[in-house]
Amino acid sequence: MIRSKIIATGAYIPTEIVDNQHFLSSNFFTDDQNKIEQPTETIIRKFKAITGIEQRRYAPLGIAASDMGTFAAEEAIRISEIDRESIDLIIVAHNYGEMKYPGAPRDMVPSVASRIKNKLGIQSTSCIPYDIIFGCPGWVQGLIQADMAIRCGDARVCLVIGAETLSRVLDASDRDSMIFSDGAGACIVQASTEGISGIINTAARSDTGLELDYISSAGENSGEEKEARFIKMKGRKVYEYALKYVPQAMKECFDRSGEHIKDLKMIFLHQANDKMDEAIVKRFFELYNVVELPAHVMPMNISYMGNSSVATVPTLLHQVLNKEIGSFVLNSGDLIMFASVGAGMNINAITYRW
Amino acid sequence: MIRSKIIATGAYIPTEIVDNQHFLSSNFFTDDQNKIEQPTETIIRKFKAITGIEQRRYAPLGIAASDMGTFAAEEAIRISEIDRESIDLIIVAHNYGEMKYPGAPRDMVPSVASRIKNKLGIQSTSCIPYDIIFGCPGWVQGLIQADMAIRCGDARVCLVIGAETLSRVLDASDRDSMIFSDGAGACIVQASTEGISGIINTAARSDTGLELDYISSAGENSGEEKEARFIKMKGRKVYEYALKYVPQAMKECFDRSGEHIKDLKMIFLHQANDKMDEAIVKRFFELYNVVELPAHVMPMNISYMGNSSVATVPTLLHQVLNKEIGSFVLNSGDLIMFASVGAGMNINAITYRW
Repeated sequence: MIRSKIIATGAYIPTEIVDNQHFLSSNFFTDDQNKIEQPTETIIRKFKAITGIEQRRYAPLGIAASDMGTFAAEEAIRISEIDRESIDLIIVAHNYGEMKYPGAPRDMVPSVASRIKNKLGIQSTSCIPYDIIFGCPGWVQGLIQADMAIRCGDARVCLVIGAETLSRVLDASDRDSMIFSDGAGACIVQASTEGISGIINTAARSDTGLELDYISSAGENSGEEKEARFIKMKGRKVYEYALKYVPQAMKECFDRSGEHIKDLKMIFLHQANDKMDEAIVKRFFELYNVVELPAHVMPMNISYMGNSSVATVPTLLHQVLNKEIGSFVLNSGDLIMFASVGAGMNINAITYRW
Repeated sequence: MIRSKIIATGAYIPTEIVDNQHFLSSNFFTDDQNKIEQPTETIIRKFKAITGIEQRRYAPLGIAASDMGTFAAEEAIRISEIDRESIDLIIVAHNYGEMKYPGAPRDMVPSVASRIKNKLGIQSTSCIPYDIIFGCPGWVQGLIQADMAIRCGDARVCLVIGAETLSRVLDASDRDSMIFSDGAGACIVQASTEGISGIINTAARSDTGLELDYISSAGENSGEEKEARFIKMKGRKVYEYALKYVPQAMKECFDRSGEHIKDLKMIFLHQANDKMDEAIVKRFFELYNVVELPAHVMPMNISYMGNSSVATVPTLLHQVLNKEIGSFVLNSGDLIMFASVGAGMNINAITYRW
């Protein structure tokens, strides 16, 4: 039996650290152009209480998605010790393409994946690079597609990258802009026929009715112009949607793995929002009548990393492997899950044996 | 054995017809900002002689990629007589996302595929929509991915769409802008275990060295600003690259099918440029020592449709099935190929039994 095994990870953590204080001089507006009358300090304090976010990271100007993706990929390749010329597929998840500065054209010609292949200096003409657009769950979906290619026998070694510069699509008059961050994460997935390590099974879900507009693109809250320039989120709707469907999708995925819930060691959840993530994992365990959350089941980095979209899950995994997330340790044989939710709306999940 | 079979196609042909005369008042510049001194009439006559293009189609303002993709998909669904709720995957190829007018932000949040699923009114939460970015060969690559999902057992019915509004990324001071066009094409691919009809095999190739910049994004030829606003092509480089590698990639694909060249009935080639397409197919047959091109092997529509990127191959297939391309007729059992080349640079090919 062929299994898709993650043999190495990498991450690019942007160097520019932006604290909550950075937003103290902001003027925030609602999405119907009304100035929010609370003092900005109060808005920020409430924001911190709900999202858990104290800091986020922005990429320096001139560093775009393909640069960050290349840094993360270089690290994964180095750790994996594979020959980069053996890579069959480069899958890059993003949602805004290559943006060199705020408001720049979102460029994907050539694709971000082609640019990364170029920057990695890969010569092999049978290494096929493509971009996938799937909202925040794009990196997990890229992993699902790599798994399909490996199980199919069409690929043996895949490089799966998530890279996003959300700092370049922020509306400064929107409170939600404080959530978002830049970053990139990557992993090398290899076909494995030995041992039990690798992807056990995967699942995805899409809702495109009213949910289509929960995360979208629009103009400034403070202005009249309604161009699709900035990332926009209906926070309450996203929260309700995620809480209703993510635990259910995760359960469907996990149940089909044939594993037992008591053996689940860790969940790598898209770093969207502290309170939301906690509520999702809590409800997931409640579906198995486990009322108390197991200790050390949910590593988090959102308080100092913010929400970097497609980059959160691979970055978090990389940090846990590097023992950078408190006392979280991933051991060989550990049963884990990846799960994500975002624009589309899309949800996905993977059961994985480390 | 499971085969991926195209059971129906659809196309959206934009209503706005733009003749070559439209460009008579243009001032053309080289990419190093020098005004081309030839009379515009002469430039247009030469353009016509090389590319074969007399007309192209532009989508009306307000009609974006997801609208065109939906029109094409609706036709394919109607012809296929499938229940749209049975669709497992919606794969949408594009390179500029949703653009409502020239210069608009290239919007992919939510993905074009999610928007199309919404417009098709599909309720099924297990119908997974995603976008793929792969240059002009994106639709053929989408078909390759659908085939992988079907062979894997992960999908049974796939909707593969290519939709592009190139009219919105044109630099009016660049001669090459006369090449490009808007459009959308779609097909329904279904898992088939009966008969011999379906995809036989597929191939892809990527070159990202110096080739990375052969098709890219840049500013106006006539201006100093170098923002990535417009589609740019190094025509001579693309021609040489395509002529060198496309016939070879097609041959590698066809040889692995185990079929005989004398049985090949038709080639659906990306409509890039009349002379280039002819040269590619001629050289492909020369690789088999066939010096005279077989009659009716290469349907073309570029003279009145222009180059609509990801939309050319499915649109051409749809028109042949509708008997709209001269006396070209596709019969059950016919051995055919799909092939494409474009930004990346990427090349792909599929051997198919109709």
